[in-house]
Amino acid sequence: MPYVNIKITRDGATKEQKAELIKGATDLLERVLSKAPASTYVVIDEVDPENWGAGGVSVKELRR
Amino acid sequence: MPYVNIKITRDGATKEQKAELIKGATDLLERVLSKAPASTYVVIDEVDPENWGAGGVSVKELRR
Amino acid sequence: MPYVNIKITRDGATKEQKAELIKGATDLLERVLSKAPASTYVVIDEVDPENWGAGGVSVKELRR
Amino acid sequence: MPYVNIKITRDGATKEQKAELIKGATDLLERVLSKAPASTYVVIDEVDPENWGAGGVSVKELRR
Amino acid sequence: MPYVNIKITRDGATKEQKAELIKGATDLLERVLSKAPASTYVVIDEVDPENWGAGGVSVKELRR
Amino acid sequence: MPYVNIKITRDGATKEQKAELIKGATDLLERVLSKAPASTYVVIDEVDPENWGAGGVSVKELRR
Repeated sequence: MPYVNIKITRDGATKEQKAELIKGATDLLERVLSKAPASTYVVIDEVDPENWGAGGVSVKELRR
Repeated sequence: MPYVNIKITRDGATKEQKAELIKGATDLLERVLSKAPASTYVVIDEVDPENWGAGGVSVKELRR
Repeated sequence: MPYVNIKITRDGATKEQKAELIKGATDLLERVLSKAPASTYVVIDEVDPENWGAGGVSVKELRR
Repeated sequence: MPYVNIKITRDGATKEQKAELIKGATDLLERVLSKAPASTYVVIDEVDPENWGAGGVSVKELRR
Repeated sequence: MPYVNIKITRDGATKEQKAELIKGATDLLERVLSKAPASTYVVIDEVDPENWGAGGVSVKELRR
Repeated sequence: MPYVNIKITRDGATKEQKAELIKGATDLLERVLSKAPASTYVVIDEVDPENWGAGGVSVKELRR
């Protein structure tokens, strides 16, 4: 009954890419721990670059 | 001092329904563990169906 | 497909009390949003009072 | 390699204030635990007042 | 700068299996979104079966 | 009503250091956003180095 949460910056990930993340994470849990795919939930959070910090500054600032 | 996080897909839950979730979760902690209602925080996250996966596909896809 | 996370301080909640929290949160989602009980996951985190702060001090300190 | 998540109600925190939260949390981890700033991630979640409950009612309701 | 959190029930996942989850999640983010592996954090939470509920009962109870 | 979650590897942070993190995070929210200290919750999670990955390997492995 795994639950996977993937947080990424909101940068235009497409519906197809998000579908691949969901499929890939579910497959990973099945391959490594034999978890039934039906029981795996995946939640993707897309975070505004202004709200994600690394090294003490926001990703928005980092990319300027 | 409980903290409750409820994640649901974003499907048009109304303000009244969300108020019921907040009230219900707070009451639950009071009833079962005698937690003072004033000390319970509840945060509801509404997740885009495209960003929630189950069984390896997004909920958006599941519902097609 | 709700996911509920309940964080409480580790204070000796019994197996029965935790079962009531699981049942109660699942019922709440069914009652308010008609979510199928089978699709609701509940995860309870019991946090060391030394690791939970409120008002700027740990709950362990608060209780002294 | 710390990860800090700050949840606040969505109340018009400015870009500058969020930058201060990121800087402050990163500094805190460096000062207290000597964590390299480059290794600290900070994610700020701004939660709709309708989706945040305290004392059994939403913050939106509390503020009326 | 992705952050991935994997929650599983505590069921004796080995060090090697957990290393595979870390490697697999990091590879997934690189393959799908070209995220630099060095920037991906993965945190695995192993949850007591007594603290994880599905369908209104704990996983511990489900398995009896 | 802020909620702050700090995740660090379990490396022997002392009770005093954790108290400083709680105090520091609470002060930060007061200083930047004028949040009343009494309303800020801080939860510290100490994660086994075997369960935290960066760059595709566990922190435990990274430190060997």
